[in-house]
Amino acid sequence: MNFKAVFHVDELEKWRLLLNNVANLMAEVEGSLKIVVVANSVAVEEYVAEAFAGNLGKMESLAEQGVQFVACQNALRAHNVEQDGLPQFVQIVPAGVYELVRLQHEGYAYLKP
Amino acid sequence: MNFKAVFHVDELEKWRLLLNNVANLMAEVEGSLKIVVVANSVAVEEYVAEAFAGNLGKMESLAEQGVQFVACQNALRAHNVEQDGLPQFVQIVPAGVYELVRLQHEGYAYLKP
Amino acid sequence: MNFKAVFHVDELEKWRLLLNNVANLMAEVEGSLKIVVVANSVAVEEYVAEAFAGNLGKMESLAEQGVQFVACQNALRAHNVEQDGLPQFVQIVPAGVYELVRLQHEGYAYLKP
Repeated sequence: MNFKAVFHVDELEKWRLLLNNVANLMAEVEGSLKIVVVANSVAVEEYVAEAFAGNLGKMESLAEQGVQFVACQNALRAHNVEQDGLPQFVQIVPAGVYELVRLQHEGYAYLKP
Repeated sequence: MNFKAVFHVDELEKWRLLLNNVANLMAEVEGSLKIVVVANSVAVEEYVAEAFAGNLGKMESLAEQGVQFVACQNALRAHNVEQDGLPQFVQIVPAGVYELVRLQHEGYAYLKP
Repeated sequence: MNFKAVFHVDELEKWRLLLNNVANLMAEVEGSLKIVVVANSVAVEEYVAEAFAGNLGKMESLAEQGVQFVACQNALRAHNVEQDGLPQFVQIVPAGVYELVRLQHEGYAYLKP
């Protein structure tokens, strides 16, 4: 079976749990696995969090292993996060919710830690 | 692609974010889009919230644009919300969770802001 | 229609609402219904909660009616919950998120109360 999962995060406090969930999923799946993490609302701020406080190191490591991190442009604007300040591994989409629906329509499972 | 999404809300504090999510999705989808919002647990109280505090104006505007708002009858009973007091655009179903499962089985994507 | 639903819980405070949701779904569905409850993160502690404080009685009754309760082994380890202390009706899986994705790929609807 080809595993496909999209994780949704819209609260800063949920990032740590989400990243653990992602790592646990990767450790368990043998064979094909696609993971997308969609951040909207205030959760996009984690992408520009101070290194010592945030989860950026873990994200970067997961991104190198193929996890796709996505930021909602509506949320970036609403929370005054500069696009230029985002890490290179983060992909910007016009609307996070659009991605969440589109990916489910393409067969991705939805997870909201 | 025909977009179909069901939003689930069971906490009062999540209504504002949910309604923003709905509006952002509608702004992004070109072509066919169906959206249902299912409220259960304490979240049904927002349907009878005081106008100055609540999100009813936004809901009404979204309902006029085709969004279907649903209230769980179990939740109305548990939280002493009179059915007669609900806005006309709100549809009552016996169990919100039933709708959430049924709609996903009909191909709706699930979102829990 | 064959109803299939997987409920996800990763917070202790959500157990009561989740169990109500499960009961409401069972009361509404006529015909075939499969329900799985996947607990990960701190939520696994509820499986060993003190009887007077917890929801174990309700869980046991639902399990007797066919609901499958699952505990994530990663979470048991992280929260120092002994496997031997779990009720007999709880099934242990290596990773809760894996089950959540797998079941959705098998057509289960996802619910996160």
